[in-house]
Amino acid sequence: MNEHIVKSFEEELNQLAAEVVRMGGLAEAQVQEAIGAFSRRDVPLAQAIVGRDEKLDALEADIERSAIRLIALRQPMANDLRRAMAAMKIAMNLERCGDLAKNIAKRTQILAESDPAGPVTRSIERMGKLVAARLKEVLDAYTASEVDRAVAVWTRDTEVDEHYESLFRELLTYMMGDPRMITPGAHLLFVAKNLERIGDHATNIAEIVHYEITGREIVSERPKMDALTQ
Amino acid sequence: MNEHIVKSFEEELNQLAAEVVRMGGLAEAQVQEAIGAFSRRDVPLAQAIVGRDEKLDALEADIERSAIRLIALRQPMANDLRRAMAAMKIAMNLERCGDLAKNIAKRTQILAESDPAGPVTRSIERMGKLVAARLKEVLDAYTASEVDRAVAVWTRDTEVDEHYESLFRELLTYMMGDPRMITPGAHLLFVAKNLERIGDHATNIAEIVHYEITGREIVSERPKMDALTQ
Repeated sequence: MNEHIVKSFEEELNQLAAEVVRMGGLAEAQVQEAIGAFSRRDVPLAQAIVGRDEKLDALEADIERSAIRLIALRQPMANDLRRAMAAMKIAMNLERCGDLAKNIAKRTQILAESDPAGPVTRSIERMGKLVAARLKEVLDAYTASEVDRAVAVWTRDTEVDEHYESLFRELLTYMMGDPRMITPGAHLLFVAKNLERIGDHATNIAEIVHYEITGREIVSERPKMDALTQ
Repeated sequence: MNEHIVKSFEEELNQLAAEVVRMGGLAEAQVQEAIGAFSRRDVPLAQAIVGRDEKLDALEADIERSAIRLIALRQPMANDLRRAMAAMKIAMNLERCGDLAKNIAKRTQILAESDPAGPVTRSIERMGKLVAARLKEVLDAYTASEVDRAVAVWTRDTEVDEHYESLFRELLTYMMGDPRMITPGAHLLFVAKNLERIGDHATNIAEIVHYEITGREIVSERPKMDALTQ
């Protein structure tokens, strides 16, 4: 392969990564705004978030198409193949984060009618901020190709699980205290679960970044809680 | 390309599809057994299901590796590329079905201690059977490359959503009737949600099969309910 082709392949890979970073910024914004809309029961913002989700779907499809075209036409070597695959897989995880943000926004519209933001909402908001920070951190790790930062996100995975477990109990207590809280409580349970799943996607992205850079799976350094992470 | 190479490429694609069919059989079994374990509160079976999930993870990784290797080394034409991509994407959806079956099995172990199988469990079981049948049908469509059967699964998507919406209301009523049912009710809500998500994966697989065979997206023929499908 002559240098001109090698150069332009490298450029294409960089462009692909830049697309992923751009999609990451949008997904991050969707998650952060969904948490904000939920905390303030901001229905117009929630509607805007639902409307913007299509953009993430389109970006994911674009990134997948570009990655597969690169793989098919360029027959990349191992490390370049990892870069193209990482772009595709991160885009998939971001698309799902977008779906979860959209779902939080939809539930916000229901909750706005039945459940004024109270102490439980504050707890969920705190968990949301933790999860959004993890997503931001792992996307920064991807952008800067810093494997240590990705590993740091990955090792703190249990924080979100613990937060979720305690939220789960808090929510049940809230529902037991007043039967009228059962319906909004069910939606709040799903909001909390959606946030936990966004946290799982941040963990997945950390694993992808680690594999992209090192070519090895993240070693199991921390005990994994046997949580109901689904 | 000489005929020998073309032949062996075709063979490799067939082998890849056979792997997906095998994985599909396993995922289907995991889902069906999870529903059975849940309905009978069968803890030993639930434990066995959790233990078997690793196999699906390994199969997905194998299929992805094979598909990407085929794409990278063979520079396939459009329709062969679609076949390799379909294999990879169906495997992803099956892996997630396996995760959801595992989660139902985990919740079964918790429910076995607190919630005897009653009328709500029967309702969830019915939804489970509907979802398992959809998954089976779409995998049969993939195996036989029958686009009409895939479209048939896809057009009946709303059945599962409607079932879920009615289950959601039934579960809330169940929880309102007796505060001691709130904790098991929360787990039952998530079991129902997991089944709905398995149904979504069956719909995704139908879309993938349609695109694999026709090269076109499924046209939007049916109105999509604005359900909280997450």
